[in-house]
Amino acid sequence: MPELRKDPVIGRWVIISTERDKRPDQFSGQASDPAEKPCPFCPGNESETPPEIYAVRKGGSARNTPGWDLRVVPSIAPFLRIEGDLDRKGKGIYDLMNGVGAHEIVIETNRHTANMADLSQEEIVNVVNCYIDRINDLENDERFKYVMVFKNYGWSAGGGRVRHARSQLIATPVNPKRVKEELVGARQYYDYHERCIFCDLIKQEIKTKDRVIMDLDGFIAISPFAARFPFEVWIIPKKHSCDFVNLEPDSRKYFAQILKAVLSKIKKGLNDPAYNYVLHTAPFRRKKMGYWKSIDHDYHWHMEIIPRLTRVAGFEWGTGFYICPVPPEDCARFLREVQV
Amino acid sequence: MPELRKDPVIGRWVIISTERDKRPDQFSGQASDPAEKPCPFCPGNESETPPEIYAVRKGGSARNTPGWDLRVVPSIAPFLRIEGDLDRKGKGIYDLMNGVGAHEIVIETNRHTANMADLSQEEIVNVVNCYIDRINDLENDERFKYVMVFKNYGWSAGGGRVRHARSQLIATPVNPKRVKEELVGARQYYDYHERCIFCDLIKQEIKTKDRVIMDLDGFIAISPFAARFPFEVWIIPKKHSCDFVNLEPDSRKYFAQILKAVLSKIKKGLNDPAYNYVLHTAPFRRKKMGYWKSIDHDYHWHMEIIPRLTRVAGFEWGTGFYICPVPPEDCARFLREVQV
Repeated sequence: MPELRKDPVIGRWVIISTERDKRPDQFSGQASDPAEKPCPFCPGNESETPPEIYAVRKGGSARNTPGWDLRVVPSIAPFLRIEGDLDRKGKGIYDLMNGVGAHEIVIETNRHTANMADLSQEEIVNVVNCYIDRINDLENDERFKYVMVFKNYGWSAGGGRVRHARSQLIATPVNPKRVKEELVGARQYYDYHERCIFCDLIKQEIKTKDRVIMDLDGFIAISPFAARFPFEVWIIPKKHSCDFVNLEPDSRKYFAQILKAVLSKIKKGLNDPAYNYVLHTAPFRRKKMGYWKSIDHDYHWHMEIIPRLTRVAGFEWGTGFYICPVPPEDCARFLREVQV
Repeated sequence: MPELRKDPVIGRWVIISTERDKRPDQFSGQASDPAEKPCPFCPGNESETPPEIYAVRKGGSARNTPGWDLRVVPSIAPFLRIEGDLDRKGKGIYDLMNGVGAHEIVIETNRHTANMADLSQEEIVNVVNCYIDRINDLENDERFKYVMVFKNYGWSAGGGRVRHARSQLIATPVNPKRVKEELVGARQYYDYHERCIFCDLIKQEIKTKDRVIMDLDGFIAISPFAARFPFEVWIIPKKHSCDFVNLEPDSRKYFAQILKAVLSKIKKGLNDPAYNYVLHTAPFRRKKMGYWKSIDHDYHWHMEIIPRLTRVAGFEWGTGFYICPVPPEDCARFLREVQV
């Protein structure tokens, strides 16, 4: 059973993934961009994944057979296990609990295509619908506090040796540190100003224009003012909403549209780099949690996209202090001008 | 002039390094481990670096000529500029200031050797003395709040194309986020227990033994309980002290000894991987800062070493949630058994 362990000084939870059982010598020498493996995610190979949890099947084909447009399966090497109790406990000064959670893989298309930029808008709408359905379903499990939705595209972004477009969902029994920090920061701003900080940020960005990459059908894509990475992009809905799952059907279509456009600009303008994206949305059961009760007012969901163009050095890890070698204004101008 | 910009939501400062002036197309395609460049850090090439700030010269040779054992020079591509005022200001909801600071390179040996593991203990004592002297000197500049001391060894750790052992010092006008979090966490523990959390941690680790790699002459090297990375190592002085610069001459020798031993175990046991280390020590002028006044009691300096064996994926960036694929107990056992 994997363990969730808390750093006693700064309170960060870490998954200690005992199940993966890597031996030290497996780390020696780091292959870059190794050869592609046969694809277990293509139609016809359904038996190579665990049984599906969810699928989009227009023709009514049987589960775990071809005929699907999108499939969700449990990870074959899950970081967290779905079975069991949390069993929170202390060991002297340390806190830990069982690594209980869900780890699901969203196979985004039935075509053997790697980059989400190359999916059709309709396929990306399927992905958005799937995220919403899966998050809503996972909220029913009382053990979970949050679902992290993210994508690792390309080897240097943590992508695997199979190049078939997919993203991941991890449901956790704790709120991730970075999410908590955002909630706290947004709360502090709201307490003082009685306005959502993201709504204010959107207004200022639209007015100054120099960090806006796209402003289209209810969404803006910007290079953030204090970007950590060159060509970091945030996609934010212009209408206030703390929770991604409340996205209306029309807005899902427009979100898919801007996501495809931004990913296509990154692919074309930056020579198809590895990238990650992470969905930042409100935690589960916030109505029950005293402190987070007003999240509906003070938090604002968004997606952060990070092309992996620079190597992250030691002091970023050690200090939380980032150096961005290109001003976000230059990054925005560059991506704005890439025609897709 | 580079800028220091603050993320308005979570309060993280970022250096926006306008001076480096990278064009977007320079990022396209990421070379792994490119060819070595001619070394500007070897004796005889002193004119290829900016004039030296500090040097260890036993024979009394002239500045910026050969005959040195260790040299400190300003970075040729500094992230921050030494001249000018901070000029803190707001731009709507955003906060920024001029990128004022110091960025120095410590050339650790006159031999063209890349890995600090291969330096003699005496050479590492020179490095320790140098860190202390430079930190003390930089504290005299009232604009600075902190000095980050770190090392990037190897390409995937952010090391450059010159393979000559060196480390870096960056003096900043703000306290880095991660350092602040540690100070706050340690303070909270002290407020409740009236004991230093690191002192308690050392006691527990020595008692349980299973995460201890070395326990030698006043220092312990451990795999931390909630390690973020496989083979992450912390070196901690057993005697309570918040500030690295107060290290006594004898203890400097012993710190150099355990640092060399740990780096040698990592080199030998893990096939000479890239790694980073970061010194975690107390900020400047803490006596003047109301909130931090008791840091001398509640904080405890240490060094964190991170071999770069895994690729960091998207959701670690986005969530602050790490997955460590090997239990730290296994890492400690493995490194304990590597003979150096």
